[in-house]
Amino acid sequence: MSLIVQKYGGTSVGDLVRIQKVARRVADTYDKGHDLVVVLSAMSGVTDHLLQMAEVITDTPDRRELDVLVATGEQQTVALLAIALKNLGYKAQSLLGFQAEIKTDSSWSNARIVTINPDRMKALLAQKTIVIVAGFQGVDPKGNVTTLGRGGSDTSAVAVAAAVGADVCEIYTDVKGVYTADPNVVPKARMLKTVTHDVMLEMADHGAKVLQIRSVEFAKKFNVPVHVRSSFCEEEGTMIVSENQDMERTVVAGVTSSKKEARVTITKVPDQPGVASKLFAAVAEIGVSVDMIIQNTRSGNLTDITFTVPRADYKRTLEVVKKVASAIGAESVAGDENIATVSITGVGMRTNRGVAAKMFETLAENGVNIMMISTSEIRITCAIEEKFADQATRALHTAFGLDE
Amino acid sequence: MSLIVQKYGGTSVGDLVRIQKVARRVADTYDKGHDLVVVLSAMSGVTDHLLQMAEVITDTPDRRELDVLVATGEQQTVALLAIALKNLGYKAQSLLGFQAEIKTDSSWSNARIVTINPDRMKALLAQKTIVIVAGFQGVDPKGNVTTLGRGGSDTSAVAVAAAVGADVCEIYTDVKGVYTADPNVVPKARMLKTVTHDVMLEMADHGAKVLQIRSVEFAKKFNVPVHVRSSFCEEEGTMIVSENQDMERTVVAGVTSSKKEARVTITKVPDQPGVASKLFAAVAEIGVSVDMIIQNTRSGNLTDITFTVPRADYKRTLEVVKKVASAIGAESVAGDENIATVSITGVGMRTNRGVAAKMFETLAENGVNIMMISTSEIRITCAIEEKFADQATRALHTAFGLDE
Repeated sequence: MSLIVQKYGGTSVGDLVRIQKVARRVADTYDKGHDLVVVLSAMSGVTDHLLQMAEVITDTPDRRELDVLVATGEQQTVALLAIALKNLGYKAQSLLGFQAEIKTDSSWSNARIVTINPDRMKALLAQKTIVIVAGFQGVDPKGNVTTLGRGGSDTSAVAVAAAVGADVCEIYTDVKGVYTADPNVVPKARMLKTVTHDVMLEMADHGAKVLQIRSVEFAKKFNVPVHVRSSFCEEEGTMIVSENQDMERTVVAGVTSSKKEARVTITKVPDQPGVASKLFAAVAEIGVSVDMIIQNTRSGNLTDITFTVPRADYKRTLEVVKKVASAIGAESVAGDENIATVSITGVGMRTNRGVAAKMFETLAENGVNIMMISTSEIRITCAIEEKFADQATRALHTAFGLDE
Repeated sequence: MSLIVQKYGGTSVGDLVRIQKVARRVADTYDKGHDLVVVLSAMSGVTDHLLQMAEVITDTPDRRELDVLVATGEQQTVALLAIALKNLGYKAQSLLGFQAEIKTDSSWSNARIVTINPDRMKALLAQKTIVIVAGFQGVDPKGNVTTLGRGGSDTSAVAVAAAVGADVCEIYTDVKGVYTADPNVVPKARMLKTVTHDVMLEMADHGAKVLQIRSVEFAKKFNVPVHVRSSFCEEEGTMIVSENQDMERTVVAGVTSSKKEARVTITKVPDQPGVASKLFAAVAEIGVSVDMIIQNTRSGNLTDITFTVPRADYKRTLEVVKKVASAIGAESVAGDENIATVSITGVGMRTNRGVAAKMFETLAENGVNIMMISTSEIRITCAIEEKFADQATRALHTAFGLDE
């Protein structure tokens, strides 16, 4: 007997028929003797519909109230699933964010979970009741309703799993698991049986869309095994586990790409202490997070600074950077909105030399110019022209032996 | 400067355009310098739509979860109104049942408000923030979501008005006020400028649909002046006030009728102590509330007992009564689902003799047979055949000088 957290996404609970199928699946798991907490998203499309209602009133709806509005989507699915399960004769009870005591900060629309008090959930589990928790939502210290951002139900599920001490957190989605690359881009992509928290974190951070990155951070921090699988079939999916477990030891686990990047370059910056900090402090102040940074020294105490930001933040970043550039006496500011990144990630990279060389070689053979490079212990990312992103992804997938 | 509670019903917030109109109306009141708490219903049709979703899954949805489901309707309107008001530049904040600390019992779908902690509302008012409270919903002592039954937002509004000590509770609805009779039945019905809590209570209890009866009970208990008015025009509506205020002193304030009654008769009941209590205890046990009761003594220690119940409860009442009848040795049980009541209500009836006689005379003149009679200090109700209900209402309206 295990304690299992199951999370079902928007397509899995997309209509009343599907909700009843989820109820059946939950009931089957319960019948095997497991204790169960189920975390749900809103029906697919509902969150967007609610956001559109607010947008009819104004382009800039108050963000506290927007969270109150969109939180109703998950409230409806948890009630409906509880009704379906009770109708099948099972003990079940829904809990909203405030009832499950999912405490967050007050960053409306993008709140972070701070603590979860598992007492009420544990008391229900002790009575063999199936606990159904509204994903995506929480309450801040003053009891205001908050939401966790797109994909936030993944994070709810993993955080709940950590709080109740679940044996596994199953994420039911519309794909079969985590793939070596996006199957839409790389037809030969394979599903991974296992992947480490670290690798998943890097992949999620560099273009893989299967899980919200915060959910993986939680899984890693609290060492929660996560099972990503499809709600439309019975097959096992991908297990995301901590590193010390037995697993496939390929050098590179996956190739990811992101087309949501933009690049900003400031030329002929006087190379003095404090200049870079002025620049990046100004960018941080408007809430933009910088990803890659390179600095090329020119002759005569001048330097060029180039960095990438999310494309959505490009225009306001440019405005701020232009002001700073003139203040510090730089020559000019240029940028490019059509930047992509392509990344290879894998724990095997730590001990395997020549991986970077092979990546650069592969890109060169494909005529892809590398603009910037960033690395971690288990990842190498190259910024390239967006038009090459898919081709580069496929080439790297083949080069590192990932093709099926 | 007053402290005003305004409640807007489902048609007043029926779509996004109307919600913006409500925002404008609220803003106008605020601009006059008043402190404001706004209580909202769900958009008209939304509660029914949510109930239908549950009914797709099962005819007997779990009632705790049904409350979680339908409470989302009000959550959406309060968020949308707050968004609209903030967009107009006003300070506004929505509060859900748990946030406004509207504490109820645990009677799902029909909960009663036990207490309201006004602290958070008062703190917001002190900051000149417009407080927007979700009507119809509360939380029970364990923090479960509850709803107050059809028309419950009226009760929310009056209870909130009592809790914060409002000068007036304005109920905005789709009619102009409280009428001397249902204008759909009596074209000559007049709007009342004022009516006492007591009279309104009797009228609501005997067929007037304009307010949920519990809201009037609250208004009477806490002496909250209630102003029933239309959200579609600026005219003043009906003030519901305590009796000691200056007001119209007509004998009869209004004529109401209810077509939702049924009658049960048990014949030849042995006239022994304890027989009636056995009968009505059994009916009470299945949660049915009995309205009128008459007992006719026959010869030979036998008696007939007749009583009325809500038509929706007729069938299950009949079942129970048949069992009791055979247990106590009564002869037979008969019933009639097509019973109506017609009532006249008015504070003037206390001191005015001949009112009852005039009522019976009027009904007789119209060929209407009176089956049962019940009275209070300020009301007389007659049970009649349903087919005579509208005619009787019009005749009484004319007889007591209420025609316009």
